[in-house]
Amino acid sequence: MTRELTVSVDAMGGDAGPGVVVAALVRAIERHPEIHFLLHGDDVVLNPLLAAQPRLKGRITLRHAPERVTMEDKPSQIVRRGQNTSMWRAIESVKKGEAGVAVSAGNTGALMAMSLFQLRTIEGIARPAIASIWPTMRGRTVVLDVGANVSATAEQLVDFAVMGEAYAQVVFNMERPIIGLLNVGSEEQKGNDAVRAAAAILRSSKLPIAFHGFVEGNDITEGLVDVVVTDGFTGNIALKTAEGAAKLVSGYLRRALKRSLLGTIGAVFAAGALGTLKRNLDPRASAGGVFLGLNGIVVKAHGGTDEIGFSGALSLAVDLAHADLNARITADHRKLDGASQEQEQAALT
Amino acid sequence: MTRELTVSVDAMGGDAGPGVVVAALVRAIERHPEIHFLLHGDDVVLNPLLAAQPRLKGRITLRHAPERVTMEDKPSQIVRRGQNTSMWRAIESVKKGEAGVAVSAGNTGALMAMSLFQLRTIEGIARPAIASIWPTMRGRTVVLDVGANVSATAEQLVDFAVMGEAYAQVVFNMERPIIGLLNVGSEEQKGNDAVRAAAAILRSSKLPIAFHGFVEGNDITEGLVDVVVTDGFTGNIALKTAEGAAKLVSGYLRRALKRSLLGTIGAVFAAGALGTLKRNLDPRASAGGVFLGLNGIVVKAHGGTDEIGFSGALSLAVDLAHADLNARITADHRKLDGASQEQEQAALT
Repeated sequence: MTRELTVSVDAMGGDAGPGVVVAALVRAIERHPEIHFLLHGDDVVLNPLLAAQPRLKGRITLRHAPERVTMEDKPSQIVRRGQNTSMWRAIESVKKGEAGVAVSAGNTGALMAMSLFQLRTIEGIARPAIASIWPTMRGRTVVLDVGANVSATAEQLVDFAVMGEAYAQVVFNMERPIIGLLNVGSEEQKGNDAVRAAAAILRSSKLPIAFHGFVEGNDITEGLVDVVVTDGFTGNIALKTAEGAAKLVSGYLRRALKRSLLGTIGAVFAAGALGTLKRNLDPRASAGGVFLGLNGIVVKAHGGTDEIGFSGALSLAVDLAHADLNARITADHRKLDGASQEQEQAALT
Repeated sequence: MTRELTVSVDAMGGDAGPGVVVAALVRAIERHPEIHFLLHGDDVVLNPLLAAQPRLKGRITLRHAPERVTMEDKPSQIVRRGQNTSMWRAIESVKKGEAGVAVSAGNTGALMAMSLFQLRTIEGIARPAIASIWPTMRGRTVVLDVGANVSATAEQLVDFAVMGEAYAQVVFNMERPIIGLLNVGSEEQKGNDAVRAAAAILRSSKLPIAFHGFVEGNDITEGLVDVVVTDGFTGNIALKTAEGAAKLVSGYLRRALKRSLLGTIGAVFAAGALGTLKRNLDPRASAGGVFLGLNGIVVKAHGGTDEIGFSGALSLAVDLAHADLNARITADHRKLDGASQEQEQAALT
């Protein structure tokens, strides 16, 4: 894995600002000696930060962008008048073929709107999806869509299954990830029209997809399957509800330990173990979301990330570009189309 | 609160069986001296259990039901040929006016199908909803619908808001519960058509509802509002995902503590505190779901409940019947209709 690659980076996104991004670049460069970075942002801010890091010399090209996208910018507006922002320029480098992948910690809605506008979807795929990686009892699971769309047809859910499979193959280094479709029950007759129709397509398809069937909400963290497919409305709510529940349990625990002297003593003894717990649940450990289904890969780092989290997002971007994720998605999608046409022809003859 | 009341109970539902139900009745009778119980189930099984509890004498009427609903029974089939089951009979007692409320720990889908078939929805309300109570950082929150339906129109979401408000008034003993609508963002333009249209109705309505606006998944456990309204597909998945996430965090904690000697020592010292944590997350502590919007109240105890959980469900049933929950829902719904008509008339003149 020492092929040359250019990674385009939005230096101005996220809560922490360009200082965190530059620190993350220093870490990433140690890990990936083959990578060149194209950094987009305000050169008045960035020049002194880069000058203070001699190890970045020769590995980074700075491109000045006079404006930045804020967390308050509305996607529909910023996509029309945001051409001078560092976020727009970071995506533009992928569109122009200057970079193999783009990374930003900025406003998710704006990043999706700009990515969709500039890169467009892969031929045959109607809608992009945001894929996230969840910790589970058995390891990790890809969940998509967690918020690119507010609904999904059966055909779009099938597209998400194809994209999620390719993504899991790369990030989990696994040949045949098991796919599940999120529903309110595991029986065939359960759910709304879209999930039932999507399941019918996935079951009958000649696409070599390992389709488990329906999974329920609790099956995600059980790690029952490697990829959980759902619409962006349900997926976004499930993701945030899970984060809330995890926070609630951690909060209970802290309060419960503080309530008694023995608990307080116990907490001191257990501090190392509690630190392990915290690391396992650390949002930095997951690298944020990845936008799938576009003519170019865009990695969204967590908005509140630090340098460890952002360098994780950079590493993920490198892996996805090296593995040629989009070529896999396109190839798998063609197989799906072929299988559907064969089925239609078989039905006609 | 010493008005007479009859509570109809399905003795054969749930994983634990009639022994748990009878033990729960003993607990409930101590707490509610004004209650009479109508117990439906197999008298060969129940007679010896009741005979062993002299305190139940004179407080319980046993009605033999030769059959029972299993967890495997499909709602669509059992509703057609389940008239001899204890579950059917328990609901029938409410329909006939013999009992003010029914309680069962059995198959949720079958219980909903039978309740809907026998009791029908309240006039003007198209669909029933299942309401659940979640623990939060600040106390408790009602979430509905968590699984009666697989979709909801804007008008149905508004009905759920009215039903959820009345339910929260009773169980939280609160005059003006704050209502939130679950969505993928808090801004007005976010979400699908149904949630946006429902929000518009709730905002403009003259109904004295305290509508907060949109809430996100993590706001549920934050306790941002008292009632969270959503469709049954999203609500069911959110509920089960939250349960899964809570289990994952507890699991991490146990493993983290066991990993080191200090952690193990700490766990011994912290055992009391961890016990408190377990009680807070105990599914028995929440009494299961309540079916709202029907001509009669049906309380669904948790399928895996024990006698403490089932007696909690009985207490909840008593509270809801005493507070005349359905009269509140009907009155609030009329106000909503009145307000809509006034708005329409105002628009015409």
